[in-house]
Amino acid sequence: MKQSKYFLKTSKTFSEEDKMVSAKLLKQACYIRESVAGRYFILPIGQKVQQKIMTIVKEEMDNTGAQEMVSPILHPLELWKETNRTSTAGFELMKVKDRRDSEFALGGTAEEMFVDLVRKFELSYKDLPFHIYQFSPKFRDELRARGGLLRVREFIMKDGYSFHRDEEDFKKTYEEMKQVYKRIFNRMNLQTDIVESDNGYIGGEYCHEFVVQSEIGESRYFATEDSSYAAHEDVAKFKKEEKNINEELKDVEEVEAVRGTTMEDGVDLHKMPLWQQIKDVLFRDENARFVLAVIRGDLDVNENKLKHIVGVNELRHATAEEIAKYIDTAPGFISPVGIQSRVLKDAELVVVADDSLKTVVNMYGGANKKNRDLLNVNIKDYKEQINFEADIAMARTGDMAENGKVLVEKRGIEVGNIFQLGYHYTKLMSGANFTDSDGIQKPYYMGCYGIGIGRTLAAAVEKFNDSKGIIWPESIAPFQIHLLALGDDGIVQKEAERIYESLMKAGVEVLFDDQMNVSAGEKFSDADLLGMPYRAVVSVRSLKENGIELKKRTEEKGKIITLEELLSLLKPSA
Amino acid sequence: MKQSKYFLKTSKTFSEEDKMVSAKLLKQACYIRESVAGRYFILPIGQKVQQKIMTIVKEEMDNTGAQEMVSPILHPLELWKETNRTSTAGFELMKVKDRRDSEFALGGTAEEMFVDLVRKFELSYKDLPFHIYQFSPKFRDELRARGGLLRVREFIMKDGYSFHRDEEDFKKTYEEMKQVYKRIFNRMNLQTDIVESDNGYIGGEYCHEFVVQSEIGESRYFATEDSSYAAHEDVAKFKKEEKNINEELKDVEEVEAVRGTTMEDGVDLHKMPLWQQIKDVLFRDENARFVLAVIRGDLDVNENKLKHIVGVNELRHATAEEIAKYIDTAPGFISPVGIQSRVLKDAELVVVADDSLKTVVNMYGGANKKNRDLLNVNIKDYKEQINFEADIAMARTGDMAENGKVLVEKRGIEVGNIFQLGYHYTKLMSGANFTDSDGIQKPYYMGCYGIGIGRTLAAAVEKFNDSKGIIWPESIAPFQIHLLALGDDGIVQKEAERIYESLMKAGVEVLFDDQMNVSAGEKFSDADLLGMPYRAVVSVRSLKENGIELKKRTEEKGKIITLEELLSLLKPSA
Repeated sequence: MKQSKYFLKTSKTFSEEDKMVSAKLLKQACYIRESVAGRYFILPIGQKVQQKIMTIVKEEMDNTGAQEMVSPILHPLELWKETNRTSTAGFELMKVKDRRDSEFALGGTAEEMFVDLVRKFELSYKDLPFHIYQFSPKFRDELRARGGLLRVREFIMKDGYSFHRDEEDFKKTYEEMKQVYKRIFNRMNLQTDIVESDNGYIGGEYCHEFVVQSEIGESRYFATEDSSYAAHEDVAKFKKEEKNINEELKDVEEVEAVRGTTMEDGVDLHKMPLWQQIKDVLFRDENARFVLAVIRGDLDVNENKLKHIVGVNELRHATAEEIAKYIDTAPGFISPVGIQSRVLKDAELVVVADDSLKTVVNMYGGANKKNRDLLNVNIKDYKEQINFEADIAMARTGDMAENGKVLVEKRGIEVGNIFQLGYHYTKLMSGANFTDSDGIQKPYYMGCYGIGIGRTLAAAVEKFNDSKGIIWPESIAPFQIHLLALGDDGIVQKEAERIYESLMKAGVEVLFDDQMNVSAGEKFSDADLLGMPYRAVVSVRSLKENGIELKKRTEEKGKIITLEELLSLLKPSA
Repeated sequence: MKQSKYFLKTSKTFSEEDKMVSAKLLKQACYIRESVAGRYFILPIGQKVQQKIMTIVKEEMDNTGAQEMVSPILHPLELWKETNRTSTAGFELMKVKDRRDSEFALGGTAEEMFVDLVRKFELSYKDLPFHIYQFSPKFRDELRARGGLLRVREFIMKDGYSFHRDEEDFKKTYEEMKQVYKRIFNRMNLQTDIVESDNGYIGGEYCHEFVVQSEIGESRYFATEDSSYAAHEDVAKFKKEEKNINEELKDVEEVEAVRGTTMEDGVDLHKMPLWQQIKDVLFRDENARFVLAVIRGDLDVNENKLKHIVGVNELRHATAEEIAKYIDTAPGFISPVGIQSRVLKDAELVVVADDSLKTVVNMYGGANKKNRDLLNVNIKDYKEQINFEADIAMARTGDMAENGKVLVEKRGIEVGNIFQLGYHYTKLMSGANFTDSDGIQKPYYMGCYGIGIGRTLAAAVEKFNDSKGIIWPESIAPFQIHLLALGDDGIVQKEAERIYESLMKAGVEVLFDDQMNVSAGEKFSDADLLGMPYRAVVSVRSLKENGIELKKRTEEKGKIITLEELLSLLKPSA
């Protein structure tokens, strides 16, 4: 492609608004341009990268036997009603009505559509498993778009859906997809951590994110150094070390405790370790129920884990007024001991105890009365008050993973994810069944698998750049080589043209900077900004040496080589 | 691809609802499946065809230097307001609001988006011309969807937009695109007529449709047998032969005329030819103006031509009540003679005379009074009444094109179109300018170019099928060959598998019917229905002859050949 004819206008400056390197560089180098916030034009040179990414994804998906298709972009809203996702995913779902008053969702994902398609067919266990996928525009009504292609309102996603006879069969595909995704990102030089994550409004029981480590990423997770365990902060598990469990249990004792309401105030007053204190955090859920989380004093409550245990979507801290009105206790002095009998009528309380409470005995904490504390509290003293005993603790750097290795907090960009869906959709959507070998209709067991194409592109730029510009991995570079003709000398132009033709003929992807009246300096800085793996310069000087000056984008200095050498270096293996 | 693993479930019957052959066959053969009316899933085997069509389009577009990119699907509604298209295209435009109350259009075309992109850059005449295009989902809020992929509410369109310094430069691209489009469709064995057409709500002054002749098509047009002239019925021109223009002009005479109100009643009463009668048709436009079309009695008014002349979007016949209220005349006896003075105040009348009136003299017709007619009416008698004299006649089979050849009415499927847009958008959208060599900011001169991918696919099926199923042109067949293993004999299965592997290794696209417990008859009828160019059968019988039975889809009988022969026949030329 000749640059003089290419819709490619690099700019010398970048917008101060953009904090992310990828946003700055992609705009400055004319790979993308914003339409309105969070909605981007992918410009011709950007589209080349996007297509290369999609080709890699397609090749690897097709290799597994997965089959590409296309679903409509407008999803009949009735389908989303069948799965109750108009409410759970409603906050970011866009809806549209046609002039016959039919309602549609602009899908953020397409589980309902694919299940609806599959239930139109009468399939049997012999047809299973199968995996169908698409590259399709997705919409998210994000309140805040940011970071160029990292968090947008419209983007191309590869979304795939697999249908299985049972869990055992699904698990094979799920494990295979882990390997396939690893390979897809590896082919773009992107190392990914496979991070256990929360299914959120997608539904199902477990899922994994593929995360490219990056300080600017929005995914926070904990991982061991060898990545043998990695999990999103929302779900990360860790070993809760035993404290004083060998001590003899003592009897509860109520004491006066004139103190403030913080955990530190308790430590100061009683001169006992933080971990021996009981921490009580009181929430309200979307059904106006109170939820009391009880946990070891040195740990924090993980609200996401808590929501899952209680089975709710929303939690917020209870206010002092609400507590005063409905529960006979005192903020800062809440205790699980006898708490259920202190709940006034018209109110409901769910008590969740973290399993860390098993690692301590003879704890201390409030007595549900102002300036009164309890000492020597043990689980047996409030066992009847508990509705759920579970892991509701937040992991921290330094905690031990269950495999015995130390956890470190990391951040990264989520470029893909895979979800176990199980029967979540096929039980909610009637008729999503196959005929099993026993002649009985059974719901499909499902999984789904996503890759954000634009975000993957941006992640590659975040990882591979320097102060001068982008450094594309060869597999997704828009062109393999950037050929520069320096100066407006007729012989240079003619020779550069000849080299361009030879490269094109050999099937090499070349961007040819044939612009006249552009200085060598500008051409060099554009080449660095645009980031092709190789730069070849033809100039009066290079011609004197009968050659082309070739430089890798990652190298400081180039060397003179012949056209033949260049061809044999770059020629695609047929 | 092995059929046992493929998401491909042909059905023995088709829906009686579908009238179009392509809709029946594509659904029955599992290429497409309806989501809701007018919105289709393109299933895996259908997606293969769609991709082949897109690849051909992309290759030919890229060859011209056009550059693929992607624009957002949601178009800021303000852009459509800038060009007044929210009202003109409003009837089929879908709108959506996000939760920040920004309004968007789900685009049917993307002129505004591309102009908006281009005006974000500061370009000069040196950057021109360029042509940028995308493959992108388009939305039409059609009241009635019909015919499978022929008229849908959602579809993939290749839409391209070219930007030029001036008309002269544009015309080169326009003529080039005519050739490129011809070639694109030729590569799919689709012969197209290039049909002059009406720009409609797209705007601009002229355009051409690419039409595949078909009885079931919705495009009606007139063409000479050699296609040297072809034009949509809305715009088709023809020679209006001279009648009695050598007669001496006589003076107007008013006579009693007790007759009905039809043209035939006039002929019967006066015993004069229909062509000598004056036909008057009275309309009202969207601004409540009256529009009187005056034309030779044997011709019909072309409302589309009339709208263009008057410069309005809507026309309807005036009612008897409206005429009685605002114009002092009598339905069935309207005459252009003195008509303007008969218009009551608060009403406005636009008179348009067809140029066919120049081919006749001494005409007859009404006298603006019931049961009174005028004889010997000539143009001079109503010249002052006329606002526009122009071609507003409808062509008919048998009329003569301006090049002297006979016109025949045809029908066809519009698979592509190209539009001159001129300055239509760049003058309405502020800042859509480039800097010319004289340093002055000038608006871009534009064209746009569309191809409906799904409709092209359906058109191919309409043209290439027989009573048994589809007959794909080789260039867009999902697979080159359909390999059938007949019977569940172990040796047959093993040999078929070996042939499948050899073909795959050679890069041949094979669909392999490896299903067990399916009869030969079913496999044969599926192969005919699915329509691959070649069918290869491995059976106990073919193995006895040490070979494979090969048959073209278009042939009745196959012949036995060896694997080597098959490979050399099908191997893609590297």
